[in-house]
Amino acid sequence: MTTPRPSDVPLSLAQQLIRNHLVSGEMVAGTEIALRMDQALLQDVLGTLVMLELEAMGLDRVHTSPSVQYIDHGLIQADNLNAETYLFLKSACERFGIWYSGPGNGISHPVHMENFGLPGESIVGCDSHTTSAGSLGMLAIGAGGIEVAMAMAGEPLYLSMPRIWGIRLEGRLPDWVSAKDAVLELLRRHGVAGGKDTIIEYFGPGLANLSAMDRHVMANMGTEMGATATVFPSDDETRRFLAARGREADWKPLSAEPGCRYDIEETLDLSSLEPMIALPSSPDKVVPVREAAGEPLHQAYVGSSGNPGYRDFAVVAGIVKGRQVADGVSLDINPSSRQVLATLIRDGHLADLVACGGRLHQTGCNGCIGMGQAPAVGRNSLRTVPRNFPGRSGTREDSVFLCSPETAAASALAGVITDPRTLDMAYPRIEEPSQMVVNRDLFTPPLPLAEARLKPLQKTDNTPALPELSPLPDTLAVPVLLAAGDNVSTDDIMPAGQRVMPYWSSVYASAPFTFEALDSDYASRAEATREQGGHVIVAGHNYGQGSSRENAALVPRYLGLQVVVAKSFARIHWQNLICFGALPLSFIDEADAGRLEQGDCLAIHDLHAQLANGPELVAEIAGKGNVTLHHGLTSRQRELLAVGGVINHIKGGERSAAPSETGRFG
Amino acid sequence: MTTPRPSDVPLSLAQQLIRNHLVSGEMVAGTEIALRMDQALLQDVLGTLVMLELEAMGLDRVHTSPSVQYIDHGLIQADNLNAETYLFLKSACERFGIWYSGPGNGISHPVHMENFGLPGESIVGCDSHTTSAGSLGMLAIGAGGIEVAMAMAGEPLYLSMPRIWGIRLEGRLPDWVSAKDAVLELLRRHGVAGGKDTIIEYFGPGLANLSAMDRHVMANMGTEMGATATVFPSDDETRRFLAARGREADWKPLSAEPGCRYDIEETLDLSSLEPMIALPSSPDKVVPVREAAGEPLHQAYVGSSGNPGYRDFAVVAGIVKGRQVADGVSLDINPSSRQVLATLIRDGHLADLVACGGRLHQTGCNGCIGMGQAPAVGRNSLRTVPRNFPGRSGTREDSVFLCSPETAAASALAGVITDPRTLDMAYPRIEEPSQMVVNRDLFTPPLPLAEARLKPLQKTDNTPALPELSPLPDTLAVPVLLAAGDNVSTDDIMPAGQRVMPYWSSVYASAPFTFEALDSDYASRAEATREQGGHVIVAGHNYGQGSSRENAALVPRYLGLQVVVAKSFARIHWQNLICFGALPLSFIDEADAGRLEQGDCLAIHDLHAQLANGPELVAEIAGKGNVTLHHGLTSRQRELLAVGGVINHIKGGERSAAPSETGRFG
Repeated sequence: MTTPRPSDVPLSLAQQLIRNHLVSGEMVAGTEIALRMDQALLQDVLGTLVMLELEAMGLDRVHTSPSVQYIDHGLIQADNLNAETYLFLKSACERFGIWYSGPGNGISHPVHMENFGLPGESIVGCDSHTTSAGSLGMLAIGAGGIEVAMAMAGEPLYLSMPRIWGIRLEGRLPDWVSAKDAVLELLRRHGVAGGKDTIIEYFGPGLANLSAMDRHVMANMGTEMGATATVFPSDDETRRFLAARGREADWKPLSAEPGCRYDIEETLDLSSLEPMIALPSSPDKVVPVREAAGEPLHQAYVGSSGNPGYRDFAVVAGIVKGRQVADGVSLDINPSSRQVLATLIRDGHLADLVACGGRLHQTGCNGCIGMGQAPAVGRNSLRTVPRNFPGRSGTREDSVFLCSPETAAASALAGVITDPRTLDMAYPRIEEPSQMVVNRDLFTPPLPLAEARLKPLQKTDNTPALPELSPLPDTLAVPVLLAAGDNVSTDDIMPAGQRVMPYWSSVYASAPFTFEALDSDYASRAEATREQGGHVIVAGHNYGQGSSRENAALVPRYLGLQVVVAKSFARIHWQNLICFGALPLSFIDEADAGRLEQGDCLAIHDLHAQLANGPELVAEIAGKGNVTLHHGLTSRQRELLAVGGVINHIKGGERSAAPSETGRFG
Repeated sequence: MTTPRPSDVPLSLAQQLIRNHLVSGEMVAGTEIALRMDQALLQDVLGTLVMLELEAMGLDRVHTSPSVQYIDHGLIQADNLNAETYLFLKSACERFGIWYSGPGNGISHPVHMENFGLPGESIVGCDSHTTSAGSLGMLAIGAGGIEVAMAMAGEPLYLSMPRIWGIRLEGRLPDWVSAKDAVLELLRRHGVAGGKDTIIEYFGPGLANLSAMDRHVMANMGTEMGATATVFPSDDETRRFLAARGREADWKPLSAEPGCRYDIEETLDLSSLEPMIALPSSPDKVVPVREAAGEPLHQAYVGSSGNPGYRDFAVVAGIVKGRQVADGVSLDINPSSRQVLATLIRDGHLADLVACGGRLHQTGCNGCIGMGQAPAVGRNSLRTVPRNFPGRSGTREDSVFLCSPETAAASALAGVITDPRTLDMAYPRIEEPSQMVVNRDLFTPPLPLAEARLKPLQKTDNTPALPELSPLPDTLAVPVLLAAGDNVSTDDIMPAGQRVMPYWSSVYASAPFTFEALDSDYASRAEATREQGGHVIVAGHNYGQGSSRENAALVPRYLGLQVVVAKSFARIHWQNLICFGALPLSFIDEADAGRLEQGDCLAIHDLHAQLANGPELVAEIAGKGNVTLHHGLTSRQRELLAVGGVINHIKGGERSAAPSETGRFG
């Protein structure tokens, strides 16, 4: 292990957490580091592939502890598929030593924080909002499912050492202003790429006035700024949070060392904030609510991992108590966890939410990812969720705003977008309960190893084994099957929504949907290349942006994708491509992008030797001459490509120590 | 109006209700009677077409009062369609003078009973379980949407005078046995066709021990026996029910006249009952629970109009209180109405349902009609819903049992099907609350007429105007496009489920799904006949059984259907065909069915004269000779066929008196 700096240089909390989990590499921004992952988090629609990957790797038992599988996304059981996915996932939990949290327990991020989060530990999850656990002083990172599978198999998580962005919090949130407004203000300042390649670390006196769940809101939406992680200290608020859940013994104090320096520093005065709102359709199109006030309202949506706290619902209840939602507005209440729901019932808040006309939904992610509650085309929907990308609500031409629970509630009462400060009432400031309604019996714990080994996976036609992926050949000569523009998202590559997501568990069943909106014929053309040496995709900047879904790499790879040549890549998708044995290459001269058209044939000779020789390689466009391309691969990554990706690599016996009974590192 | 019997013959309550609403006809079983409908009930997935029918008729304002549009079926907003359906329906309510009950208020049947049900009134609804309102001493009948539209337009409801089936209730339900068990016992005795062409009327001393909501359970499932309606007296239990909802003034006593005679008489001793269960996949495959005990359980489902009462949830809460649902079982809690949900919260029952591991869903029909909570293939699901037809759960190869809330709760705890009497605990007998949590402000009342006239319908591409239907020509020579067997259901004709139901509002968008499972090519073949004179469908017995959905008649009619020739028809579908101007004919000699094959051409000459000449007509099968067929049409029905159905009939100025401001008959 490398000591990155002289030991007398005080470290930020993020640096301490990295140091404590560093397996290899140097803590120098931009270089590859390998981090030991203590815990792992899975949600259902991406967890299915992870389980199939564990099976393909031949894993006996997971190394991360706890590893927890949550059922929170695919809750609309419109046919047999989702129920059978639950059965498959539960059987895989039994087999591999994973906790199972069934449908109804709640959204992975708050539920994990309530029940498993531990200050000082690291966690990787196959969901981009895994960062939320940074609220408890954890090093919490979202990644592609295959990287989570690797971590569960005992491998470290590889990433580029981020810069540390210290945000000093001062003051105290005014009445009617809450944590969501604070993070929206940061999005207003820095935009959706403002946190790229950084870890955000909050510090300063303003922390004392933010509960652990307030911090969850801000750590959750750090992802919206593109940050790798968000870290909060573990302090008295953290202790109070754990104590209210019977877990005070799990607390320990953590903070930056006095005098530490951040790569970037900034101050946010909480006292100066006002209610903020993100306009459609990006989380950084933020303005003060008063600038949008008066716009008609169709829906106000409360819930999601973007505002999952007891307080976030209780303050809505306090606002609507004794009042009536405006005619024509749907106030959708989406409890985040069973613990929150039970406590809201106990304290009388749920009664107020139902009495005012609120529409109570099942506990889970729901409409935040287009699973229900999709609005009418063009009608304004105010939501406390973290994202308002176009169509994410389930409605293609939606009009979704992001805001605090206070703003959602005030607007639902008024029937128009409303600055909650203009309500004629005292602010119902919510005290965190000293004791939540806790029931940990509703999680199914891992089985002992001997018993686990007897458990078969309950597979169905919709959870077939993963395809075998072959190594990249040394000579490629393949057609350009698709030439796309800038900002192709993983949503463009693999669509989400209730129509497609139940099939995500099957590479084969989801294959026909690949690139559906961009090029509905891609899948059938690609399928035809599978046995013919495959194909190339050409793209512009930021290829693979958005969600971390690994099937956006795996499924095209199954369909014959060998190489993507793009002007630039989004980080997680770039990793995903390599993990599945596809080669991402960048144009050195962006003008070359125009030379590579659909139908062209791209040839690369001596591929592996060229990769080893340095960061550039030469390819030939049939009839058009050579083109020089760039790869940023480490020797580790070149090895992955040489064997056909991570699964083959693990199967090949590269795995580290055998697992212990607890699943911890030995 | 005809006085059916000498005035000194005492009448059953059902007969009194019919007499009080009789517009024409004689109260002689089997002859057509016309009944005035006081109230009308619409649900969303069938209400859309009704609204379009009102528009097509050129209606200014509805005559029934109250008319209430409920949003309870299409609650899964996976895309923009359902939200836009709500907007369309709300706008139609504003235009035509209809109450609007938005999503979240609950299932039409219990919500109507709670808020609008009136002893002594008649009600027609476009949902087969409209019969539930018979629990309050109403004459409550389910019908095709077009018949509801006619009633709303001031026309009477036509039906064949039913026989009255008196069931004398004696004794008192033992501990652990409830109303569901009583009606399951009747289904065991009489089967799903046992109540055909009857009105079930309960009387006797056992009534005193059945709350109004218990009676709802039995009136609801009278439909499962094929009964036209179920009638309960209005007595002290009825008064108590209304009083607990602030509506004691709406009560009046109603009962059979002393000494009245029933066409059929039967006794049910409540004291002798035990917990009953309907095995997959028919409501009449009923056995005592003890005979199915020990079978493994996947799901226990509580809710629906089959067990919607406060008691039905509270008794489950009492059973699970302080206990835990068995690992691997999903206990799905589906509140029936906002009133019930709010009262369960107030009284602490919801807390117990959540604490035990219950999964709380939104208020509405939900999984009862395959909208969510679909089980895994072949896994046992215990449900308190009224029906377990194959695939109705949303899962094609499902295994659904029907039972009481007590049985569902006991089984959820044990993890296997369990007779609740074997639980080691005292029966938590539930007292009906003396006061429910009531909020009638959550219904949007009709607008005054002048204001209503200014309101446009908010139509979308998914709520297009109905097609114009032309009269049956006098000479038909059309191909047999489909030759089907016995028991073709309306589900076979027009599929349900989340995949198709959002499109039911559009004849054109739902057309491609017609007969999908039976003959996936029918829709395109039929489309081709539209401008070529249309086509014939040939079928066996009981054609059009099951749900009352009128699109099973309207959509094939739009696709060119002119004539159905079957061995026999289900009642409501037969009515629906005539209402949309298609001619249902029966084989006189069933052996003739074999002569009419797909591809044959059927010719009928002098159609209207033949219809007027008597109940038989002669048709010619090209190349095979003549066939004599039967029609049971009244002169009223012949007129409908002559003008192309009910809508043309109403448009033609046949409507009765102009509506008053209240929508009542003038």
